[in-house]
Amino acid sequence: MAVYTDISEDELSAFLGDYDAGRLTSYKGIAEGVENSNFLLHTTEGSFILTLYEKRVDPADLPFFLGLMQHLAKNGLSCPLPLIRRDGGMLGQLAGRPAAMVTFLEGMWPRKPTVVHCRETGKAIAAMHLAGEGFEITRRNALSVAGWRPLWDKSEARVHEIDATLRDEIPSELAFLEANWPKGLPAGVIHADAFPDNVFFLGETFSGLIDFYFACNDFLAYDVAICLNAWCFEKDGSFNLTKGMALLEGYQEVRPLSEAEAAALPILARGSALRFFLTRLYDWLETPPGALVVKKDPLEYLRKLRFHAHVKSAADYGL
Amino acid sequence: MAVYTDISEDELSAFLGDYDAGRLTSYKGIAEGVENSNFLLHTTEGSFILTLYEKRVDPADLPFFLGLMQHLAKNGLSCPLPLIRRDGGMLGQLAGRPAAMVTFLEGMWPRKPTVVHCRETGKAIAAMHLAGEGFEITRRNALSVAGWRPLWDKSEARVHEIDATLRDEIPSELAFLEANWPKGLPAGVIHADAFPDNVFFLGETFSGLIDFYFACNDFLAYDVAICLNAWCFEKDGSFNLTKGMALLEGYQEVRPLSEAEAAALPILARGSALRFFLTRLYDWLETPPGALVVKKDPLEYLRKLRFHAHVKSAADYGL
Repeated sequence: MAVYTDISEDELSAFLGDYDAGRLTSYKGIAEGVENSNFLLHTTEGSFILTLYEKRVDPADLPFFLGLMQHLAKNGLSCPLPLIRRDGGMLGQLAGRPAAMVTFLEGMWPRKPTVVHCRETGKAIAAMHLAGEGFEITRRNALSVAGWRPLWDKSEARVHEIDATLRDEIPSELAFLEANWPKGLPAGVIHADAFPDNVFFLGETFSGLIDFYFACNDFLAYDVAICLNAWCFEKDGSFNLTKGMALLEGYQEVRPLSEAEAAALPILARGSALRFFLTRLYDWLETPPGALVVKKDPLEYLRKLRFHAHVKSAADYGL
Repeated sequence: MAVYTDISEDELSAFLGDYDAGRLTSYKGIAEGVENSNFLLHTTEGSFILTLYEKRVDPADLPFFLGLMQHLAKNGLSCPLPLIRRDGGMLGQLAGRPAAMVTFLEGMWPRKPTVVHCRETGKAIAAMHLAGEGFEITRRNALSVAGWRPLWDKSEARVHEIDATLRDEIPSELAFLEANWPKGLPAGVIHADAFPDNVFFLGETFSGLIDFYFACNDFLAYDVAICLNAWCFEKDGSFNLTKGMALLEGYQEVRPLSEAEAAALPILARGSALRFFLTRLYDWLETPPGALVVKKDPLEYLRKLRFHAHVKSAADYGL
């Protein structure tokens, strides 16, 4: 939730000269996206989002992210469409940073997701999985099972600041997940970060998916597991079975899960909970006090992890 | 530069139901205004700014601020126009805070003000002074000469953290200004905070004045002095005489300064520099490290104060 870089009208107008997007009439830094600087632009042609990629994004990944949005939009998914520059590319430079413009999506992310939002999100994620077929660039998921132990190694020495018992619990989780992580499930491009703030609605009607900056190639069902964690728990930590059922039904309306995928859901959800626990733990311990970001509580995901460890089958999620 | 309060779509839609402003299609927290939370709304009827008044604004002042914008717009000044609610008022409640909606002004504030921007700003401030005539509510300027000593008293004990010599310099400035502050100059409603980020342009054409939350009744020429400080110094601290000349010419094209006003400009500019020095000093010392605001350097205004102390007459500003 921060604008890291301000830009002058002169440099922005020069940047816009490389596009056929009309004349600039206003731009506002917006409180959206924690990794990049985002601006909402009005021009004589309409509204656009301008993103300046800050240092947490690897520039080598940008052709994947931008190409993916273009591919998904071409295949009918409602998502921001990168504008093509006069030189044929999608990426420019602004204020010394890689920068791109995308179409503005009307819609709001649900601060209080309902059962209908969960169903529509299930459908949207399945639609994204289908629309992603045939996309030729690939990007490894650095935050899947192989990436968790190195992440843990960076936080282990200070984890007692949060809870000393984690020094035993997390290594045993890691060992279990590494030994039992599924193999050979249907794979493709996943969103990998489809939290409520990345799914837009007009009322309860899905209007678009945004923020593909964690997208990568992985098991499709892992994306479903991420959504179960992100959408189907209540603030008190309880799992809402009705929401789980709606999300999974929505997903299967568009892309039915195979038996193997359904069987793997508990371990995928457990792994996904560990992944968000570990990144939040790292950020929690490493972010200097008072930095311009809101720190997210890692313990929320520890509680989800423990829940999934006791789940017997995907039926417990409402399948 | 911060959104302090987030709002849910439900509460925002309910709030919008009190206006005839169309159906909500998107809202984004924007990085504008340091005192309040601001959102850029798109509805089926157009673009609007929604402001939630945070605790630094006294709710008792809101009828003045909103009424003033309405009065100025009615008299032809380009500024945000508060929307009228179905109950006839301009003020509602959202997320437990007083809240108002205003029309969205296209335009950008100049990050690098030119001589033309200075001239247009001079004209705009003069136009505001004329448009403010006949506005019936009044608001005392709590940050004029009588307010500076109490402000200094709050910071004096810690000023050595910035520069120990200020313990002598500031009291002697205060004594001089209190003894010599002008009396009986033409007075009216002033903006009191017309820094570049509050004056919008399309290219070099003035498009509107925003942020009236420091507006109050005071000498009109004091507003001109504030603008000289805010617009006519370069980043290296030097006074740009060409810009000063342009700003004053622009102002006088619309509203000529009296001889008494012109003669008072040096002391008004000196006082205005002290005012911004003192508020910045207070914020600098009192803002906890890492709070979600950008602290502004008080020493910038100390250097301006010293410049004005050596000015002989308004001719030194380009008059």
